[in-house]
Amino acid sequence: MKHLILLRHSQSRWNLENRFTGWADVPLTDEGRREAHIAGELMLKAGLLPDAAFTSYLRRAINTLQEALVALDREWIPVRKDWHLNERHYGALQGLDKAETAARYGEEQVRIWRRSFDVLPPLLTPDDPRFPGKDPRYDSLTADELPLAESLQDVVARVRCCWEERIVPTYASASTVLVSAHGNSLRGLTMMINHLTASEVQELEIPNGRPWVFELDNRLRVVNNFYL
Amino acid sequence: MKHLILLRHSQSRWNLENRFTGWADVPLTDEGRREAHIAGELMLKAGLLPDAAFTSYLRRAINTLQEALVALDREWIPVRKDWHLNERHYGALQGLDKAETAARYGEEQVRIWRRSFDVLPPLLTPDDPRFPGKDPRYDSLTADELPLAESLQDVVARVRCCWEERIVPTYASASTVLVSAHGNSLRGLTMMINHLTASEVQELEIPNGRPWVFELDNRLRVVNNFYL
Repeated sequence: MKHLILLRHSQSRWNLENRFTGWADVPLTDEGRREAHIAGELMLKAGLLPDAAFTSYLRRAINTLQEALVALDREWIPVRKDWHLNERHYGALQGLDKAETAARYGEEQVRIWRRSFDVLPPLLTPDDPRFPGKDPRYDSLTADELPLAESLQDVVARVRCCWEERIVPTYASASTVLVSAHGNSLRGLTMMINHLTASEVQELEIPNGRPWVFELDNRLRVVNNFYL
Repeated sequence: MKHLILLRHSQSRWNLENRFTGWADVPLTDEGRREAHIAGELMLKAGLLPDAAFTSYLRRAINTLQEALVALDREWIPVRKDWHLNERHYGALQGLDKAETAARYGEEQVRIWRRSFDVLPPLLTPDDPRFPGKDPRYDSLTADELPLAESLQDVVARVRCCWEERIVPTYASASTVLVSAHGNSLRGLTMMINHLTASEVQELEIPNGRPWVFELDNRLRVVNNFYL
């Protein structure tokens, strides 16, 4: 039996401030660090010891992973950072207060931006300081890969690259893989591995900081899944 | 111009207690974490921004790197952990108090164990709990690779693998590489890149927590080197 453990980053400063975060690189709160440590302790207690890990380019996911690995006494395992696991890019909404945005555009419009499968939020312009093309960490991305905004569908498409080209091959030498990432990139992963429809994945809520364990057979088909 | 930055881990608990550490996985002190953060700030101030990093399997080097990358705002760069960069394995001396060991074996004997190029310290037996074959992180090592103790010469030989097979190829896409490791593994690296003799490398003292910068030409030959 192989295991895949999905871990949505624990509390970040903008979770607390209720702002659209996306690719903004916001740190964890102290409470978030504690939650991540507890997530590691839960895996340890369940005997689920990751031998490889993946995370995004964003510190709230990187630090969640690091804290969990401290609790697991497994800081030495290989960790691969991959921008394909980043949160959905919220375009021109990024950084805005969610309640203010609802007051301005209407709750229904915000619900559509947040919950639809293929609707884009308002786009950035390439001269916007929030455009990832201005951030050196994304220098290796092609022009096509640099988003002005993303739908959940876009996220699923890029997460698929990471799953097929990086995570799946890791199982040749690993039995337990931990992925520390974000609400929407983890939605994308579960959509693929759990064969969810677009409407099922739209409704899926993944709690922050709680390890979600998938038992996989040797062909990496899901046999069982549960939260710790 | 390319850059290689060597960083010996900052203060660990056993540095403070003056014990032989080797492959024992001892944490940094709070002071060590501060030193590592300062090392990152020094690189930032010098405009030396690593685009890839290497470290050992030991948390004092891993955490030194992490703290430096926080200060550099570059937690997202790829980090490769490699046991070849571990500290020299001190065999049966590992964990012993350095002063007590000198009192027991004589200062000259301890000096020889610590400072000679090809003399082994007393060997472990494979049933010793300190034998790396008992630690899951070294499960992928062959029987030949699992040390009962190491001379500096042994360390140079294994560090060479990491340099030639992993660090050098990284320069194809990186211009500044940071290596966070240990006194003896960094001695091994400098011996190769700076063409030191055995007696020169025996005398080399690398301070903890201070970035040592090597300017390299396009063929990775050292043009200049200095501490920040």
